[in-house]
Amino acid sequence: MAVSPPIQPARACLGDVLKNLGSERQAALERLFQFLAIPSISTDPAHHAGCLEAADWCAAALRDIGFEARVEPTAGKPMVVGHWRAKGGSPLRVLFYGHYDVQPPDPLELWNAPPFTPRLVEDPKRGEIIVARGASDDKGQVMTFLEACRSWFAVHGRLPVDVTVLLEGEEESGSPSLPDFLARHGEELKADICLVCDTGQWDEDTPAITAFLRGLAFSEITVTGPSRDLHSGLYGGPAQNPIRVLAQLLAAMRDQAGKITLPGFYNAVVAPTPVQLAQWRALGLDAGAFLSEVGLAVPAGESDASLLEQLWSRPTVEINGIFGGYTGPGTKTVIPTHATAKLSFRLVPNQEPEKILDGLHRFVAERLPADCSVTFAGEGGSPAVGFDTSAPAFRAAANALEAEWGKPPVVVGCGASIPIVEAFRSRLSMDSMLVGFALEDDRIHAPNEKYNVKSFTKGANSWARILDELSAIGANAHS
Amino acid sequence: MAVSPPIQPARACLGDVLKNLGSERQAALERLFQFLAIPSISTDPAHHAGCLEAADWCAAALRDIGFEARVEPTAGKPMVVGHWRAKGGSPLRVLFYGHYDVQPPDPLELWNAPPFTPRLVEDPKRGEIIVARGASDDKGQVMTFLEACRSWFAVHGRLPVDVTVLLEGEEESGSPSLPDFLARHGEELKADICLVCDTGQWDEDTPAITAFLRGLAFSEITVTGPSRDLHSGLYGGPAQNPIRVLAQLLAAMRDQAGKITLPGFYNAVVAPTPVQLAQWRALGLDAGAFLSEVGLAVPAGESDASLLEQLWSRPTVEINGIFGGYTGPGTKTVIPTHATAKLSFRLVPNQEPEKILDGLHRFVAERLPADCSVTFAGEGGSPAVGFDTSAPAFRAAANALEAEWGKPPVVVGCGASIPIVEAFRSRLSMDSMLVGFALEDDRIHAPNEKYNVKSFTKGANSWARILDELSAIGANAHS
Repeated sequence: MAVSPPIQPARACLGDVLKNLGSERQAALERLFQFLAIPSISTDPAHHAGCLEAADWCAAALRDIGFEARVEPTAGKPMVVGHWRAKGGSPLRVLFYGHYDVQPPDPLELWNAPPFTPRLVEDPKRGEIIVARGASDDKGQVMTFLEACRSWFAVHGRLPVDVTVLLEGEEESGSPSLPDFLARHGEELKADICLVCDTGQWDEDTPAITAFLRGLAFSEITVTGPSRDLHSGLYGGPAQNPIRVLAQLLAAMRDQAGKITLPGFYNAVVAPTPVQLAQWRALGLDAGAFLSEVGLAVPAGESDASLLEQLWSRPTVEINGIFGGYTGPGTKTVIPTHATAKLSFRLVPNQEPEKILDGLHRFVAERLPADCSVTFAGEGGSPAVGFDTSAPAFRAAANALEAEWGKPPVVVGCGASIPIVEAFRSRLSMDSMLVGFALEDDRIHAPNEKYNVKSFTKGANSWARILDELSAIGANAHS
Repeated sequence: MAVSPPIQPARACLGDVLKNLGSERQAALERLFQFLAIPSISTDPAHHAGCLEAADWCAAALRDIGFEARVEPTAGKPMVVGHWRAKGGSPLRVLFYGHYDVQPPDPLELWNAPPFTPRLVEDPKRGEIIVARGASDDKGQVMTFLEACRSWFAVHGRLPVDVTVLLEGEEESGSPSLPDFLARHGEELKADICLVCDTGQWDEDTPAITAFLRGLAFSEITVTGPSRDLHSGLYGGPAQNPIRVLAQLLAAMRDQAGKITLPGFYNAVVAPTPVQLAQWRALGLDAGAFLSEVGLAVPAGESDASLLEQLWSRPTVEINGIFGGYTGPGTKTVIPTHATAKLSFRLVPNQEPEKILDGLHRFVAERLPADCSVTFAGEGGSPAVGFDTSAPAFRAAANALEAEWGKPPVVVGCGASIPIVEAFRSRLSMDSMLVGFALEDDRIHAPNEKYNVKSFTKGANSWARILDELSAIGANAHS
């Protein structure tokens, strides 16, 4: 049987899709609240069932919209995969990526209400906001895209381009199952471009396309001293204290100027181009105002770098957690056997996570005092990435965002890594376009995480428009 | 009514008391196991009821032995007070002090059996041992004295000297109610000397009298940075990390030579006399062997001090616990709002806890970076003490111990503080004699705490003999 050549449909009417999104507002919020109520904390084994439930919920939602969808098991949390293709194929195919897993909600006592009981709250500054773990990172953002697709289907019975949706369940825990999944299913996912909705706007009124993403390397270091917990009176003095040794190691990792002292740490780092630096200066960011939102005033990174450089183009080491000895109420005069710190490094293009972790291991080995041993656990990471923002898909998205927001998007960097973006580039030779509607004050990874209803509704509009603009590229590309 | 002059009884026969102690061995162990089964953890508010139960148990035991006893409430845990006085009074009166509270048992997972289910275990090296939280510190030691009194009463219907017993319930949590209690009840407690059983032997075969006790100062320091937990990707670099700041402060508190860098820390410290140092050298302690018991090899204190000096005559700072940020399984890329460390200082004679804590506050204030604040909580302490070991009571105890153990006791220091000892001296002008039967490997304050059955039985014999020897001093003093 002969295959017909693809039919190039005339661009369908975007206006009806936007109108439909407006009338679906309440129903869309209800769907998001169902999704937010599922405690899909991937890093905590106790919440494995919540992750499975979230994956099933996503697959059912995709089918309800009009996709073919399935839950694909992995060695860890499952992937959700959905497809829609025009009969005979569209001239352009996109892959949309998001994640259904969320960060742990602790410290629970700082939440004003349970983190998995989503609420609409009237915020004096931001208007209506959605409060729940995952509201912004990333369930609310995922749903902006799915709601855009739902309205395209509802109005036109089709999408303007071929769309595959991939929803991951391990983004918050280092994506351990991703490499194997891409090795097995990469061909099925391959598209002209990947759309990712896991980043933020420049500010409440200004959309952004993120073109630089820091990478990540992480390690949990445990220093062990005495073979059992000791009474600090009977042994204090002669006995090596592993908490002190750990503190000394952590303190020595950064010098007075904020430079990281691990061997070879800066070897591969490339400085931003003068053009990039000029663009960043032109954004006119007020460092004090940025930091005052979180109770700080003075940029604490490398003293010779501006705040945006510290965030987007300079690597860091952070201590994300520390514990050792007695941590309950009152006093216990103990010298503990061990102390542990959770470290993560933010990387910039050219730094390789393996080499950074090697440097950490050498740094510790060179400084570890007599009578102490050390172990490193849970290590992993992903390199940083940067994109060519002059490519057609980027220009199409810029047009769509300008139409929705009334001003062009700014091209920004992001301090956080999205491992999938690097994996798509290295394994599938596919670029990603990062468009998201989160705001600085969304409290992602923190108590009382929120997503503005405006982000949600205008985010969905934005995707409806981007899909429309992308179909024009596709049509041109094949005409 | 006229009071008769005190009758001086002939010294009763010690031999029958020792014989009675032998025949009571099994019953005595059963009494100790009842006491050990009560979870009297004073530092943990969740175990308040266990402390009350232990106090009631002690008062009932004292009454059963032959004392008048009562439980005396305080603002914290109650004190147990028991009295026995000969008709008309004995020529000598002693106060026995011990504590019924115990350290928290965590980490629970390192115990081979539940900490409050006492067990007799056959140890290949030590023979029969009693395993439970408090077996050595201090319930087992308290019971050596009470069992000696029980046998004196059983055989002779009386004790050789007047005895008051004071059992405290807050020794492991800094004795906060003690000053007020001594102010109200000091006269009732005042005696010729205080006997304390909360220290150790020199080794398994050699008894010891402890004449130097380090003091203690403690503080919980919390460093606060950002006003909420931050995503380390979005803020890592410019945001001050309170875990790092805390690590830097802790690392800076000691220099490379092991000297503590707090301002004024060593101002009041007096070096041991050449005679003391010579005695300590004569003990021939093998530092490597001492440390190898706990998996260590190299003395980690001040590099110009011997191990015994580091333990008995040099002050320290220890970090007993640390916590901050994410401490659960997996990774969470957070910059937390705060981080906390529990610190304690071991002090030597002349150092004042208040001045040491002042030095800590100044040290931190001088080094705290911009954007961080600090709080200190739960502070307290007690000075170090030393005794004149040529006094008659010390010579009497030395004779009794030599008779029981076949060799004279060694006069040692102790790295740990016993706040009551300092309080008795400063408030009641009363010296204390510290005789105990704990061993280095008793794992006090650690999982699987134990007390050798030999410590328990020969300890009780030792007290029976010490009471007998003290009655001779008393008789001489009044003849």
